Amino acid sequence: MRICVIGAGPSGLAQLRAFQSAKMKGEEIPEIVCYEKQADWGGLWRYDWRTGVDEYGNPCHGSMYRYLWSNGPKEGLEFADYSFDEHFGKPIASYPPRAVLFDYIEGRVKAAGVRDWIQFSTVVRDVSFDDSTGLFTVVARNCETDTETRETFDHVIVATGHFSVPNVPYYPGFESFNGRVLHAHDFRDAREFEGKDILILGTSYSAEDIGSQCWKYGAKSITVAHRTAPMGFDWPENWQEVPALVKVEGKTAFFKDGTSKEVDAIILCTGYKHHFPFLPDDLRLKTANRLAASDLYKGVVWVKNPKLFYLGMQDQWFTFNMFDAQAWWVRDCIMGKIALPDAAAMEADWKQRQADEDAVADDYGAIVYQGDYVKELIAETDYPSFNVDGANEAFFQWKKHKKKGIMTFRNHGYVSPLTGTMAPPHHTPWKDALDDSLESYLTAPEPVPGE
Amino acid sequence: MRICVIGAGPSGLAQLRAFQSAKMKGEEIPEIVCYEKQADWGGLWRYDWRTGVDEYGNPCHGSMYRYLWSNGPKEGLEFADYSFDEHFGKPIASYPPRAVLFDYIEGRVKAAGVRDWIQFSTVVRDVSFDDSTGLFTVVARNCETDTETRETFDHVIVATGHFSVPNVPYYPGFESFNGRVLHAHDFRDAREFEGKDILILGTSYSAEDIGSQCWKYGAKSITVAHRTAPMGFDWPENWQEVPALVKVEGKTAFFKDGTSKEVDAIILCTGYKHHFPFLPDDLRLKTANRLAASDLYKGVVWVKNPKLFYLGMQDQWFTFNMFDAQAWWVRDCIMGKIALPDAAAMEADWKQRQADEDAVADDYGAIVYQGDYVKELIAETDYPSFNVDGANEAFFQWKKHKKKGIMTFRNHGYVSPLTGTMAPPHHTPWKDALDDSLESYLTAPEPVPGE
Ligand SMILES: Cc1cc2nc3c(=O)[nH]c(=O)nc-3n(C[C@H](O)[C@H](O)[C@H](O)COP(=O)(O)OP(=O)(O)OC[C@H]3O[C@@H](n4cnc5c(N)ncnc54)[C@H](O)[C@@H]3O)c2cc1C
Ligand SMILES: Cc1cc2nc3c(=O)[nH]c(=O)nc-3n(C[C@H](O)[C@H](O)[C@H](O)COP(=O)(O)OP(=O)(O)OC[C@H]3O[C@@H](n4cnc5c(N)ncnc54)[C@H](O)[C@@H]3O)c2cc1C
Ligand SMILES: NC(=O)c1ccc[n+]([C@@H]2O[C@H](COP(=O)([O-])OP(=O)(O)OC[C@H]3O[C@@H](n4cnc5c(N)ncnc54)[C@H](OP(=O)(O)O)[C@@H]3O)[C@@H](O)[C@H]2O)c1
Ligand SMILES: NC(=O)c1ccc[n+]([C@@H]2O[C@H](COP(=O)([O-])OP(=O)(O)OC[C@H]3O[C@@H](n4cnc5c(N)ncnc54)[C@H](OP(=O)(O)O)[C@@H]3O)[C@@H](O)[C@H]2O)c1
Repeated sequence: MRICVIGAGPSGLAQLRAFQSAKMKGEEIPEIVCYEKQADWGGLWRYDWRTGVDEYGNPCHGSMYRYLWSNGPKEGLEFADYSFDEHFGKPIASYPPRAVLFDYIEGRVKAAGVRDWIQFSTVVRDVSFDDSTGLFTVVARNCETDTETRETFDHVIVATGHFSVPNVPYYPGFESFNGRVLHAHDFRDAREFEGKDILILGTSYSAEDIGSQCWKYGAKSITVAHRTAPMGFDWPENWQEVPALVKVEGKTAFFKDGTSKEVDAIILCTGYKHHFPFLPDDLRLKTANRLAASDLYKGVVWVKNPKLFYLGMQDQWFTFNMFDAQAWWVRDCIMGKIALPDAAAMEADWKQRQADEDAVADDYGAIVYQGDYVKELIAETDYPSFNVDGANEAFFQWKKHKKKGIMTFRNHGYVSPLTGTMAPPHHTPWKDALDDSLESYLTAPEPVPGE
Repeated sequence: MRICVIGAGPSGLAQLRAFQSAKMKGEEIPEIVCYEKQADWGGLWRYDWRTGVDEYGNPCHGSMYRYLWSNGPKEGLEFADYSFDEHFGKPIASYPPRAVLFDYIEGRVKAAGVRDWIQFSTVVRDVSFDDSTGLFTVVARNCETDTETRETFDHVIVATGHFSVPNVPYYPGFESFNGRVLHAHDFRDAREFEGKDILILGTSYSAEDIGSQCWKYGAKSITVAHRTAPMGFDWPENWQEVPALVKVEGKTAFFKDGTSKEVDAIILCTGYKHHFPFLPDDLRLKTANRLAASDLYKGVVWVKNPKLFYLGMQDQWFTFNMFDAQAWWVRDCIMGKIALPDAAAMEADWKQRQADEDAVADDYGAIVYQGDYVKELIAETDYPSFNVDGANEAFFQWKKHKKKGIMTFRNHGYVSPLTGTMAPPHHTPWKDALDDSLESYLTAPEPVPGE
């Protein structure tokens, strides 16, 4: 049996780790081939200064930027089989910067020794399914050699992420705006906007965090226009929330309430698309960004062809540990330990999940809903059980801390649902921590003499 | 017989026009299907404010920017079957802005009535050739409906351009530069760089023209670093040419001669890649950007499978009229009026062309070389013969005018190789013509009273 995993981000790596963990326990596992378009693993967590296209002319995957710190507590995403304490050898604070989380993700898979399963700089270009043989054909282009392979597999697992292909709406005047219009996907260095008047569209995590970065690194003003509702945090004084954008003229943005503002750049924090250029109609997932994706039994099995799986296609409160829960479950499904129900039951499953999601009242309910999904999956495999309610609790606290102070919430710490360790506060408040390197994060600065 | 044309830029449109012209003359022509990824025709000449990805998540094709004026005289690119005089009803100046050339390109194909042959917002995702049937299968995704078609064709003509996928080199420090690093492909509005210190890498047309735009619209300074040799024009005083970039640190760029300069943005005018994500190894052109492309008999026939053609894959002195010459020739080849020699002769053809190109002494020789190629092709079809030497002459003059004044060359006019009309000077010198609209170009401004 041959398995193809597409993507070596947190989801794809979880899948490799799941199989390797079964192998460690003496089980016979199928042959695994993982294709990764980038030159290294880690998915979005691999920082890429490039925007637009990568070194080989393929769309650039990276959406993360310099100075990005985890926007949720690390206690909500801890791997159940590899704690932060184990990786870093000491307790660390709750909102690590990107490089620290990359190190943590990498630590586990380095230890697992699965790097050889991955073909890097190799982009999957086409996947097709042959009804007569029951096999998939995967066409992958090695960009270094500029040559293609065409191999057959029993199962394909799509783990290509869904926060890489920007949703870029048009507003009248964008074609003649005298400044930069960019999507969050192409935002890289907040210092570029020092002294600038910034307009942000959108009110979700990217809007909040990119605005905060710009504020932290010296933007002159931040104006956030909302289509639906304002974020409503207690913003700094050079930050305002305004109604929806109507149009721009020259450098002036006009809003729905008749007000206007001259701005230097417009940053579209308007979300991402599920986009699978390599998949034909019969295998291609089409779903909104929501907690219960369409057409996926148990959130992972493609109901129209259950030999195909998708990982991490949901909107995410839980991330790394949810990907693990999914990957262990998919592994057991492929290895015949979990049986699939008939097509009608699989269809009913995702519809019920969406109905349940629609009935959720608020963010707190949504956290519990996704926590329950994680619990459901891990109960059916040997993935180490962990205190999901404890993770929920960290998320609840996080939300409260954000409400209290949107520029100070990252100074708080939470209890690990795995080890019970209480995270120490970071040595420097987030607002003043301008260096986001791993070294700086893990080492308290030398005390300045006389201070 | 069924023909697939991929792309409805100037090259693809030339192909449609070539077939339509045969039809007009009473010939029976094959069925033509043209797939175009963008929502409209015109290729690069369709201005797109988007960068990165388009509205459907596909890589954005557009490389042109606001305020782009033709960089060569229009007398070098005039369609032999559709003069500028005919289209505009009066003589116009020699260096029209983008919108004016778009109008001209569109005018001819509107008159030809070929728009129905084109499927817009439809991206070709895969092409394969079946040896047993001798047919191509083309997989195309309609992005509006998000559904795919899979159709067979006797011939495929690739006209997707090769100035859309940027070549983006890495220099040490790019990952931590505190400003914007962008490729010319993503440059859109020069006003964004008003008051800024700009560093440009590269010394070809993009470097020269983007630097000039930034200068025209008020950049503080322009520094151009060359890898091979400086451009050597007589630049304005806030413009300097420096040796190759070595690294950047913070906002400071360091050059090979030990000098450095603080800059706000780095614009990579480092050229483009031939990139065909939809073609498998056996059909995919791999060539340098040169006048005689590799593996193409007569510059258009794919020698490894002569049922496949490529248009416009050469580096370009001649453009629209060369694409026409190619398209008419390909049409006649498909319609059996031109016979192909054996494989060895086709192989020898492109190698000889490359050897001849390598023997060319300078730019003047290169212009003559490409002019001769155009002459060679049009002699073998019924494409209207035109005064290619006259076009060459316009190019020679152009080069001299650039040498004389890099910010004034666009104020000159040349003689049409078709109609013999001498182009009038534009009503406003290029340097002062800040409005690049069609209306402004075609209408002399009202005299200001008292001036
Ligand atoms: C700006 C931003 C900040 C975020 N911050 C946080 C955070 O603080 N905490 C948190 O928990 N989550 C965060 N996330 C959520 C993020 O989605 C997950 O943490 C995680 O990266 C998802 O993992 P993934 O493997 O599913 O997808 P990705 O990380 O996107 O990885 C997908 C991989 O597939 C590869 N790939 C794509 N197409 C192909 C192809 N055709 N062929 C081969 N390989 C391909 C890509 O190169 C990539 O390596 C953030 C997301 C964004 C956009
Ligand atoms: C910045 C810039 C300025 C230029 N200025 C001049 C100038 O002043 N004068 C001049 O003569 N030339 C200029 N050129 C040269 C230019 O290459 C030609 O004028 C002309 O546009 C080339 O035509 P084309 O049809 O070969 O390619 P393009 O114009 O690139 O058209 C290719 C078409 O194929 C489509 N396509 C691509 N991939 C797919 C797919 N997979 N499926 C379906 N459709 C697809 C694209 O959307 C596009 O419409 C300039 C080029 C650049 C980059
Ligand atoms: N670690 C970090 O700090 C960090 C930073 C950024 C992002 N992330 C992660 O990245 C992921 C994506 O978050 P996201 O914020 O980019 O996307 P998102 O959560 O999908 O939010 C999209 C936003 O865009 C708005 N929008 C969509 N179309 C619009 C239009 N046409 N006009 C105006 N507004 C429009 C939506 O408004 P409506 O509400 O009106 O629909 C919504 O506010 C999340 O997983 C997040 O956690 C993390
Ligand atoms: N209408 C207009 O005004 C206009 C404007 C822009 C472009 N264009 C057209 O666009 C097309 C493309 O022109 P282009 O200038 O973008 O590309 P190009 O002609 O291919 O030139 C590429 C340039 O990049 C340099 N380069 C490549 N790799 C580099 C690296 N690693 N480091 C430093 N320099 C590097 C090359 O330098 P070396 O010489 O050292 O190799 C060369 O100067 C042309 O057809 C042109 O006519 C037209």
